[in-house]
Amino acid sequence: MFDRPFELLPLPSPESYEKWMSVALEEAERAAAADEVPVGAVVVRGDQVLSRCHERKIALSDPTAHAEILALREAARHYGDWRLEDCVLFVTLEPCPMCAGAILLARIPLVVYGAPNYKFGAVRTHLRLFEMDKWNHHVEVVEGVLAAKCGELLTRFFAQRRQQPC
Amino acid sequence: MFDRPFELLPLPSPESYEKWMSVALEEAERAAAADEVPVGAVVVRGDQVLSRCHERKIALSDPTAHAEILALREAARHYGDWRLEDCVLFVTLEPCPMCAGAILLARIPLVVYGAPNYKFGAVRTHLRLFEMDKWNHHVEVVEGVLAAKCGELLTRFFAQRRQQPC
Repeated sequence: MFDRPFELLPLPSPESYEKWMSVALEEAERAAAADEVPVGAVVVRGDQVLSRCHERKIALSDPTAHAEILALREAARHYGDWRLEDCVLFVTLEPCPMCAGAILLARIPLVVYGAPNYKFGAVRTHLRLFEMDKWNHHVEVVEGVLAAKCGELLTRFFAQRRQQPC
Repeated sequence: MFDRPFELLPLPSPESYEKWMSVALEEAERAAAADEVPVGAVVVRGDQVLSRCHERKIALSDPTAHAEILALREAARHYGDWRLEDCVLFVTLEPCPMCAGAILLARIPLVVYGAPNYKFGAVRTHLRLFEMDKWNHHVEVVEGVLAAKCGELLTRFFAQRRQQPC
């Protein structure tokens, strides 16, 4: 329906995954500093960061303001197209159903994530949304990149919350 | 974690469902007029419309700009809280995985939709996301309200697209 004004770039190589996940971790730390659930996401095209975001659900009073949704929206705005067909999403936590669905809609070819999402994971834990044969797009997944660091941030955040007086 | 500054209202009655779906249909028609996929959504609290939106994926260059996501975000902004616990979402088309996930996260108690989504439906057609026992929130569903009108808009839109020269 639309012609792209540019060529598709090759995806970032596996050697770069930890570097990009470290950027996502920086974003997760920003979320924790703002008392938001510490999850960060980065959209990378070629060797460039198109967007880097963290959860802002409370700050924005927006139930959809997960790191991934914000990063996909900002990346598409920079890209000038809603189809992010040569972009990789790096995120510190396994995506939930909303974010996994958004990744499919944005035609992201590869998602790299850190820690498993025991509460709401829709890629491996509770649902394998990308493995269903119903959709018109396929998403590759790499899990467990810097998983310990990604998970520790979340564990520490929720432990501190439980210690706070109600 | 937060105290609400107001009481929860009773949900709109079943007698009002067609009225609210008609508002969602008006939004879907606006989408068609803008050459976007004709889906409309309305968030209602008590007897008031908190938000009414239509798909704007192309206009906003935003893969997440489905009618439901835009309506949830705008409703939460007006509401001043991301938890829409006494709000009903009316939408002309069965929600996709992204939108169904967002409905869960926003703690919407009831979704009323029109036509089935044969391509991407995550409430009944390809997935029954709300019926999984993994989430910490339950969503009731009413399907088929003004389904014929909702579906016709989509059928007509895609038939016209196929007739256009490439």
